[in-house]
Amino acid sequence: MPTFVQILDFIGTFAFAISGIRLASAKRFDWFGAYVVGFATAVGGGTLRDLLLDVTPGWMTDPIYLICTALALVFVAVFGKLLIHLNNTFFIFDSIGLALFTVVGVGKSIALGYPFWVAIIMGSMTGAAGGVIRDVFINEIPLIFRKEIYAMACVVGGLAYWICTVTGLGSYVSQITCGIVVFLTRILAVKYKICLPILSGKEEN
Amino acid sequence: MPTFVQILDFIGTFAFAISGIRLASAKRFDWFGAYVVGFATAVGGGTLRDLLLDVTPGWMTDPIYLICTALALVFVAVFGKLLIHLNNTFFIFDSIGLALFTVVGVGKSIALGYPFWVAIIMGSMTGAAGGVIRDVFINEIPLIFRKEIYAMACVVGGLAYWICTVTGLGSYVSQITCGIVVFLTRILAVKYKICLPILSGKEEN
Amino acid sequence: MPTFVQILDFIGTFAFAISGIRLASAKRFDWFGAYVVGFATAVGGGTLRDLLLDVTPGWMTDPIYLICTALALVFVAVFGKLLIHLNNTFFIFDSIGLALFTVVGVGKSIALGYPFWVAIIMGSMTGAAGGVIRDVFINEIPLIFRKEIYAMACVVGGLAYWICTVTGLGSYVSQITCGIVVFLTRILAVKYKICLPILSGKEEN
Repeated sequence: MPTFVQILDFIGTFAFAISGIRLASAKRFDWFGAYVVGFATAVGGGTLRDLLLDVTPGWMTDPIYLICTALALVFVAVFGKLLIHLNNTFFIFDSIGLALFTVVGVGKSIALGYPFWVAIIMGSMTGAAGGVIRDVFINEIPLIFRKEIYAMACVVGGLAYWICTVTGLGSYVSQITCGIVVFLTRILAVKYKICLPILSGKEEN
Repeated sequence: MPTFVQILDFIGTFAFAISGIRLASAKRFDWFGAYVVGFATAVGGGTLRDLLLDVTPGWMTDPIYLICTALALVFVAVFGKLLIHLNNTFFIFDSIGLALFTVVGVGKSIALGYPFWVAIIMGSMTGAAGGVIRDVFINEIPLIFRKEIYAMACVVGGLAYWICTVTGLGSYVSQITCGIVVFLTRILAVKYKICLPILSGKEEN
Repeated sequence: MPTFVQILDFIGTFAFAISGIRLASAKRFDWFGAYVVGFATAVGGGTLRDLLLDVTPGWMTDPIYLICTALALVFVAVFGKLLIHLNNTFFIFDSIGLALFTVVGVGKSIALGYPFWVAIIMGSMTGAAGGVIRDVFINEIPLIFRKEIYAMACVVGGLAYWICTVTGLGSYVSQITCGIVVFLTRILAVKYKICLPILSGKEEN
């Protein structure tokens, strides 16, 4: 029986893989290329985190991420046209993935004995770096640097985790709070079109 | 005396470095930039693999890869114009490199105790990730995601390795079979213009 | 009390972060994206080096790099327009950073027992890889492969370090010589517009 967290992890991986596969398909990648981009989107952030923390990347210990990406590929191939009408659903899934990946990244770093400021960076990396790798592969400027509140939501959630922990709340409460804060920050920022300001500079290259 | 595998490794490194140096030169990189791109193309896949497997990258233990890339640079500088007529020769060398790098990647992962599904990914990464790094450096969409059977040949070869092993054939036979399968898959796919299908989706960005 | 090297390290980090933040702002990244690019420019080279040397990246042990990047962000936001007139000042700072990062990279590798040819590569990576990561993030062809003497100055400085060491000069003298050689190579190359030649090839893609 999979636990609740495993189910959320599966949903998050699926949603992230879908986002990579869709963007790769739009660039006319073949299905193998789309699979690789989808997989890199789903596990890239966690892999970078695990390289920095010097532990074996999670996807190398469990084939579930490969299988999950394969299901995402089949899903896009079969329901490709319908997906456009499901954008809102995927936005919710993607935000769930972002929230969960952040919680996992922060929790893993804390468990390994890193200070909180490192853990918050690792949580944000887990959530957001996959999307950066995806955008580098499809040769676009990474979306998260320019549009919407994305990685910033991870940072806010990580700070909430930290506040919960220093005020003596247990790790269970801290994790749930962190996840909800990431999720709500992302949802509300998109709903109310809240953007971060751009630095004014018009510099030469 | 270098062994047979070392000679093949040298040929593969040389061919991969040439491909990086040629594409970098076409983008008007200076010779130092071309050297760096050639080196990254040759050793990038193995380096990523070794980072994930948490072992010291091979090129840090033996300067042969640096020397081999330097020879490739001299070769391109001297025979630049002739190279266009040697495309078929380089295609063969490149395919030998792909086959050998895959065998090395799978074998190294198995020797470190990883399961076969990880080893096949590592073999494919060893063969194909260098080309992805090259294309990111020269700011192009990675070729292997869009054109021809490339990384897919590594996966097919890795599966052949696995089938040989589970049917009880020794590691020597498995490795040779794997290499031949990668080589033939690549050669035949290009000869008969076999491509993987593209997912149908025409998604918005 | 910070040591002299720590002050130089701070100046180098600040200058590298500024360069990332300015280029990101010019591409209309929001301030969070600009901060991430600035941070990656400043610590990216050292992080890659530390991943390859299998040690914990320096920025994960001391929040000074995060703080330094934050100061650089405030600086660009406040003095954005003035910065154009300070290009020469930043060029000097950037060259100091390049020199210092190279010395740190070579010294750290030697201290870990690697041979000199590995140490020179690690020194050059520490100095130059951050700029490559920055240019990949903003989706430009890495500048250092095409323009001016940049990474090449690190290599020259690394060779000077090696010559000092083999001729029996102490590590202190070797480090200062290395830093000065990197700094002067860069400054003189730019002042006298010395470029490396381009390989002649006009290859097809």
